[in-house]
Amino acid sequence: MEQITIAVIPGDGIGKEVTPWAQQALEKATEGQAQFAYEHFDLGAERYLRDGEILPEEDLERIKKTDAILLGAVGDPRIKAGILERGLLLKLRFALDQYVNLRPSKLYRGVESPLADPGDIDFVVVREGTEGLYCGAGGAIRKGTEHEVATEVSINTAYGVERVVRYAFELAMKRRKHITLVHKKNVLVNAGDMWQRLVDKVGEEYPEVTTDYNHIDAATIYLVTDPSRFDVILTDNLFGDILTDEAGAVVGGVGYSASGCINASNEYPSMFEPIHGSAPDIAGQNKANPTAAILSAAMLLRHLGFDEAAARIDAAVEADIAELGSTERSTDEVGRAILGRI
Amino acid sequence: MEQITIAVIPGDGIGKEVTPWAQQALEKATEGQAQFAYEHFDLGAERYLRDGEILPEEDLERIKKTDAILLGAVGDPRIKAGILERGLLLKLRFALDQYVNLRPSKLYRGVESPLADPGDIDFVVVREGTEGLYCGAGGAIRKGTEHEVATEVSINTAYGVERVVRYAFELAMKRRKHITLVHKKNVLVNAGDMWQRLVDKVGEEYPEVTTDYNHIDAATIYLVTDPSRFDVILTDNLFGDILTDEAGAVVGGVGYSASGCINASNEYPSMFEPIHGSAPDIAGQNKANPTAAILSAAMLLRHLGFDEAAARIDAAVEADIAELGSTERSTDEVGRAILGRI
Ligand SMILES: CC(C)[C@H](C(=O)O)[C@@H](O)C(=O)O
Ligand SMILES: CC(C)[C@H](C(=O)O)[C@@H](O)C(=O)O
Repeated sequence: MEQITIAVIPGDGIGKEVTPWAQQALEKATEGQAQFAYEHFDLGAERYLRDGEILPEEDLERIKKTDAILLGAVGDPRIKAGILERGLLLKLRFALDQYVNLRPSKLYRGVESPLADPGDIDFVVVREGTEGLYCGAGGAIRKGTEHEVATEVSINTAYGVERVVRYAFELAMKRRKHITLVHKKNVLVNAGDMWQRLVDKVGEEYPEVTTDYNHIDAATIYLVTDPSRFDVILTDNLFGDILTDEAGAVVGGVGYSASGCINASNEYPSMFEPIHGSAPDIAGQNKANPTAAILSAAMLLRHLGFDEAAARIDAAVEADIAELGSTERSTDEVGRAILGRI
Repeated sequence: MEQITIAVIPGDGIGKEVTPWAQQALEKATEGQAQFAYEHFDLGAERYLRDGEILPEEDLERIKKTDAILLGAVGDPRIKAGILERGLLLKLRFALDQYVNLRPSKLYRGVESPLADPGDIDFVVVREGTEGLYCGAGGAIRKGTEHEVATEVSINTAYGVERVVRYAFELAMKRRKHITLVHKKNVLVNAGDMWQRLVDKVGEEYPEVTTDYNHIDAATIYLVTDPSRFDVILTDNLFGDILTDEAGAVVGGVGYSASGCINASNEYPSMFEPIHGSAPDIAGQNKANPTAAILSAAMLLRHLGFDEAAARIDAAVEADIAELGSTERSTDEVGRAILGRI
């Protein structure tokens, strides 16, 4: 029996309600194959408001020793934008070199899309996770005066881009073998040109995979007018952030979308989370839908090599949504229903 | 009778077919009030392919002396991304200090939105036009090697942001008095913080205007799930580019969307254009819809103070779409029909 240690960061608000269901899904799907030990980390807005700590160095060191991370959601309106994001979420992505931010978008049968004619939607966004405008390289001078200048610097390296490009090609080979690079190479000519060259270069090793290119502005149109055109979308950190939220809306809400922040070379643990936030307005009311969190457990299992167990969770979720997706249910009801099907 | 000189840049592809209709709309709507003289400029992909010129200095100087610019569309797949965009379109926006990029989005009666339940959509995006990631401050080292590093720098100044913020508040006062600032201040903390502070500061002078804030990723969701929540969206150059294309899709296609690149201090001429591209696939076939070009003529007239004439064009377009919007018509048929109603 495989022993697996999971770092659990339930975080804030509904994060605390949905994460236990993800843990139960892990266990149920791998019964007899794996045994999970959990290390709980009290991190997020509540911890920060209590004692000012965001991600203590010793917590980070302990997290590094685990096999994978389950994260709930982090955030609280009382905290100034940027503090937890940069101090906790992005700090983890960068410190653990999670260079692939993997975000599947699928329109499940039984879920209503806001689009009149959505078609079959089933694509994955491969978002770079450790570079671009997210690296925190910017500053301000003369702050608060009429002469203030504020900069944000997008840093992109061939090393960082090529590895995520390779990941996208490997993924495309397991899917419908089509990659759409999304960038803004007509304006961001330096970074865009490098992305395109690396896609072309790596693409030569994958002659079966077809590639095309959309500007980010055009891609936001296609997500609304023709989302079924996409198989694998490959893009940078900021464009990936934008496209995956729009994609979440198009497939009927971020409540059905999970994501993985993956260190594909396995030097550090990867992190799995629903893409929704902490939703303070409904927190503590047993109202949050645990589906995305449970789907993130499936992504975690797939990452650790339990493909069959992951597929069982996916199938359970799919069956649950097809049958009961449109009914009003509590967190516990949805959780129990999906668990029952695994 | 007022004498007005318009620089006309039909550009490429369908740009050449739709621009004459915009000119005719200008004339018809201002009959007896204004007289137009046109200076034609042969700029765009075809010119560049012919003699390598993109925007000769003497053309720019002549353009500076006109009262306003009508632009068709620029672009050709044979030309590498970035050359015409940065050499012509962005060059004009920057050289003429067109700091307000104004993009109304309206769902006309008679136009089908891709959304199942679009509601009333009528908002304006006020996009900053002379700063941010568009200023071309970036570079690359070790290009083509595995050690390549490519950067893109977003430069934002209090001077540049405050003036566009003021414009948005003035515009909101003439509309439903609500501004949504869109940025990514939880990650782009330097620029985002400055934008928010300037909105708060200028907002004190407009106590009737309410403001709120969305991250860019959340805004792309709301455009799909609840677009009628927006009145004035205020945002930076790149986020504005992305949101206005998504908005164009949501209101039934960029064929109904015009835009103005405005120098609101009137030191240099402002520029008006449909937001669609040159569409080489349908060029020269009398198929392109001239509606967006005609709407850009209305924006031009409003900018020059002919509010009543502009309203007449808008009303003619609205009536045409309501009655015939869903029929297949040629460029000339649509043009004539709208002209007939002005
Ligand atoms: C919270 C924020 C920093 C984060 C991001 O921008 O990456 C979120 O939007 C996401 O997509 O995971
Ligand atoms: C062509 C391109 C440079 C331009 C932009 O990004 O501003 C276009 O997309 C637009 O929105 O006018």
